[in-house]
Amino acid sequence: MNHSRLERLREEMRARGIDIYVVPSSDFHASEYVGEYFRAREFLTGFTGSAGTAVVTREKAGLWTDGRYFIQAAAQLAGSGFDLYRSGEEGVPKVTDFLKEELPAGGTLGFDGRVVSGDLAEQFRKIAEDRGGSLYVTEDLVDPIWTDRPAIACTPVWILAEEYSGESAVSKLSRIREKMAEENADYHIVASLCDIAWILNLRAGDIAHVPVFLSFLFISEDRATLFVQPDALGDEAAAYLRDCGVEMDSYRNVYGAAAQLQEHAAVLLNRQSVNYRLISALPESVRIIDREDPSEQMKAIKNETELRNTRQAHLKDGVAMTKFMYWLKTNVGKIPMDEYTVGCYLDRLRAGQEHFLDLSFADICAYGPNAAMMHYAADENHRAQIRPEGMLLVDSGGHYLEGTTDITRTFILGPVTPEMKLHFTTVVRCNLALANLRFLYGCGGISMDVVCREPLWELGLDYKCGTGHGVGHILNVHEGPNGFRYKVVPERRDGGLLEAGMITTDEPGVYMEGKYGIRIENELICVEDEKNESGRFMRFEPITYCPIDLDGIEPELMSEKEKNRLNAYHAMVWEKISPYLTEEERTWLEVYTKEIV
Amino acid sequence: MNHSRLERLREEMRARGIDIYVVPSSDFHASEYVGEYFRAREFLTGFTGSAGTAVVTREKAGLWTDGRYFIQAAAQLAGSGFDLYRSGEEGVPKVTDFLKEELPAGGTLGFDGRVVSGDLAEQFRKIAEDRGGSLYVTEDLVDPIWTDRPAIACTPVWILAEEYSGESAVSKLSRIREKMAEENADYHIVASLCDIAWILNLRAGDIAHVPVFLSFLFISEDRATLFVQPDALGDEAAAYLRDCGVEMDSYRNVYGAAAQLQEHAAVLLNRQSVNYRLISALPESVRIIDREDPSEQMKAIKNETELRNTRQAHLKDGVAMTKFMYWLKTNVGKIPMDEYTVGCYLDRLRAGQEHFLDLSFADICAYGPNAAMMHYAADENHRAQIRPEGMLLVDSGGHYLEGTTDITRTFILGPVTPEMKLHFTTVVRCNLALANLRFLYGCGGISMDVVCREPLWELGLDYKCGTGHGVGHILNVHEGPNGFRYKVVPERRDGGLLEAGMITTDEPGVYMEGKYGIRIENELICVEDEKNESGRFMRFEPITYCPIDLDGIEPELMSEKEKNRLNAYHAMVWEKISPYLTEEERTWLEVYTKEIV
Repeated sequence: MNHSRLERLREEMRARGIDIYVVPSSDFHASEYVGEYFRAREFLTGFTGSAGTAVVTREKAGLWTDGRYFIQAAAQLAGSGFDLYRSGEEGVPKVTDFLKEELPAGGTLGFDGRVVSGDLAEQFRKIAEDRGGSLYVTEDLVDPIWTDRPAIACTPVWILAEEYSGESAVSKLSRIREKMAEENADYHIVASLCDIAWILNLRAGDIAHVPVFLSFLFISEDRATLFVQPDALGDEAAAYLRDCGVEMDSYRNVYGAAAQLQEHAAVLLNRQSVNYRLISALPESVRIIDREDPSEQMKAIKNETELRNTRQAHLKDGVAMTKFMYWLKTNVGKIPMDEYTVGCYLDRLRAGQEHFLDLSFADICAYGPNAAMMHYAADENHRAQIRPEGMLLVDSGGHYLEGTTDITRTFILGPVTPEMKLHFTTVVRCNLALANLRFLYGCGGISMDVVCREPLWELGLDYKCGTGHGVGHILNVHEGPNGFRYKVVPERRDGGLLEAGMITTDEPGVYMEGKYGIRIENELICVEDEKNESGRFMRFEPITYCPIDLDGIEPELMSEKEKNRLNAYHAMVWEKISPYLTEEERTWLEVYTKEIV
Repeated sequence: MNHSRLERLREEMRARGIDIYVVPSSDFHASEYVGEYFRAREFLTGFTGSAGTAVVTREKAGLWTDGRYFIQAAAQLAGSGFDLYRSGEEGVPKVTDFLKEELPAGGTLGFDGRVVSGDLAEQFRKIAEDRGGSLYVTEDLVDPIWTDRPAIACTPVWILAEEYSGESAVSKLSRIREKMAEENADYHIVASLCDIAWILNLRAGDIAHVPVFLSFLFISEDRATLFVQPDALGDEAAAYLRDCGVEMDSYRNVYGAAAQLQEHAAVLLNRQSVNYRLISALPESVRIIDREDPSEQMKAIKNETELRNTRQAHLKDGVAMTKFMYWLKTNVGKIPMDEYTVGCYLDRLRAGQEHFLDLSFADICAYGPNAAMMHYAADENHRAQIRPEGMLLVDSGGHYLEGTTDITRTFILGPVTPEMKLHFTTVVRCNLALANLRFLYGCGGISMDVVCREPLWELGLDYKCGTGHGVGHILNVHEGPNGFRYKVVPERRDGGLLEAGMITTDEPGVYMEGKYGIRIENELICVEDEKNESGRFMRFEPITYCPIDLDGIEPELMSEKEKNRLNAYHAMVWEKISPYLTEEERTWLEVYTKEIV
């Protein structure tokens, strides 16, 4: 089926004289996750992962994705006509290098200008120019062949009250205008849906598990205009926006409004998130100041209200997770279980917590060899039975009115091999090494990542992804500019310095293809530590409260210091979670948080 | 005295209508260390450190330097009229920020265009432009007030035979031309003296301890021209250059030759090393391709001959250092010693080794509190007596025909406090943690630095400098692009990826102002390790062979793994060095390389 989609795309290309067509995994806002309407790359290739780029030439068809998805993509691309290009692997060309190689002299390179960022499109433009060719960017070529394409999402916008946001939209706009003044910018165009939602303290549901709404925001010294689908705004939201001094215009009018900006204006925008067509619409005389959106750094540094609430969200989430762990480990082998049903059981535990809003992403419940696929997803039709042996990896999280969580635990369900224990214990050592690092202000994640990987590298093992990502506050569970990664990957935009108030995940793992997967993920708040003549020290506060399965731990593989770290973590879990459990659960938790020696 | 120099500079400034004058620590080639002629900043301020920038306004005078020199600079600037600006400290403005603040509207910013790189001058130019002001770059204003200024150095150039260089100049030029072709460059201008010496396999002595010669090199597809002082070249060197296809022109003709380059040519050059006047001399139509010199990466990756020879140089150097350590520890308290005389003793031991050429930098022999100054230098007139107590820090190295060394040891000379033992042991743990790191290809020093600092950060301590630097091969003992540093410092140009064949120092330390200093420095070759499905692993081979003073070690502060690392290092030192010692020395070395438990 997919193969015929590829052939039909090639027909559309031929009809327009396009030599290469690129289909990225994006919406009009460079969002990481996208609504159903925008899953053109998935429609075309059959690969369901969140990240990937399809490139089709007259002869070749390729799908580029990263290490999280290698195993999954290889399986899903079978029969699609697309070859898998493993991004970052030795000898694998980048998309841009592939285009340089494949575009014929004088050829035409096509893509939908609304789903490619200004930055990336500029690279494409240069490649075409170097080959004496041209771009074709005015049409979405997947549209004519996607006959049952879903409609664009339009969900109701709601207001996140200041007791939850900790800062008014008026205050946020004022801080942004200060940054605009520093840059001598007349306008600021915000395309990032998470930034718009954060600035305006509004949420909705246009992307599954990412509570945002399709919109653009133009800010000048004295005006702010939100381009939004009219049906998304009820009377209350519209009145609220007017009170905040924000004007409203229709979502589809944004390109026209861009064309009407004052000549010679200085426009602050991020070419990595504003799409090519919107940038192209600006008057030619405009001077673009290409910077991160000021709100990116602001929203990453959580305020005191957000931090206090987030700890509360993690307490609820930890209760749900701990109850799940008790249920799973007590009942495995006694009642029927599969990857899909245990995920549903966990979802119900989360949904039962006060102020639960949504999952923060679709659960990963992966049993045995399935867990070697980093972003494996079981569903009603594809689910492995769970037996009292081996390991189950569960990566999950929730949005609550108080904040967002992301946690991974790997549970031991029966007998495990010495190799599994070695790998499990090593992953725990890695996780705790990073969580307990004291560091000087001025470090970015790139400087700290190796502290986490070192025990695995000693064994000749590695995980093919970053160690951690920033966590949005009732927004995308992945956000920048913070993250842990030992190499610079510019497009991930996670190379910022760690600042007090940022929240980052710490999630090392071992993935043994065809055998098993282990990941242990906690969230860490960056906090101030001692300030002395050596400088300003920082440390992490772990805010994920759920036991790390002691059945996977081999204490002899841990140093005294490492055992103390694990014991301190478990003492905290006991203190936080035990008051919320039943008597049976509490008795069980006492065993699973006991000191190891 | 210095204060009057400052006043005389201000007179020269007033005479020319200059509001601010900048005097950096540079020659015409952005060299880190400079010949006597170029020490204008030292003449003006009295500060003798290798790195620093003087800025003089009509009212203020400042000297910027980095953490290595804070204590020394504070002492030497007393009475000079210059205030110390501690670069990198919180609240201390950068030179450029200071200039932005201080330059009056329409003011004139002056500096000698030959001693400021194109890159930095461009920043200065923008600052002046933003203030509606202008630059004054055609005169060296220190020259008229420096009446006894030394002449420009002009030492004889000699040929490093291919059995020592491992690659002919013709081959190196050919590899550079390949890189030029990749960049579509018509010309390549090399200003870096170390790069020119490396490319041509020539050495001299125009800078103390850096065996280079003042010159510029222009390379095109079919020509290469060396601009060099005619008196520096004997018949043999001139004939050799002709054989290599390299034409010769006079050093002072380089600006004229730059002006004569073909219109619209593409010129590959590094704006960080080519001076502003040379860049300004190029025809306006020239397109500059601003890149690292291709030779920078090439010379950092030592070839097999260089690596084999370097290990040999370290063997000789280790024998000298070990004999020194034996002599020092056996005789302290029995014969008179001071910082200067023990340095001379060590220099004689090095000079007695076969193929010794020069010290690779002026020794640092620092006793007691003096060792807290990272780059303290004793001399005939300023030297502390050495007593059988506390610690002596010795940082030294040599150039041999086989290669260059850089080693630091801190010696225990008598009773030490528990705090000293704690700090000494911690520094050793730091050093060995980095030396024993196995890592994946793709790491730069920024990703590994924290592995070294972690034990010190745990104690709330830090050293205010990078952990290590690349080492030139009979060139500058400091070279890029490799280094270990947890923050990006663009002007250090040491943020490159670690490649097999690179040599980097590993030199953590503790500096307790007014009390003592500890530094332990070994050199590490980056080598290939296991390659498996997780990737291409790399590791380090330590090539510095000299005991780490066990009298400073508290074994109870070390884990088993750390003790094993130290024992393995000492077993290697014993194996390498013991054959070259006297019977007494060998008996002593057995004790100082024994296993700790």
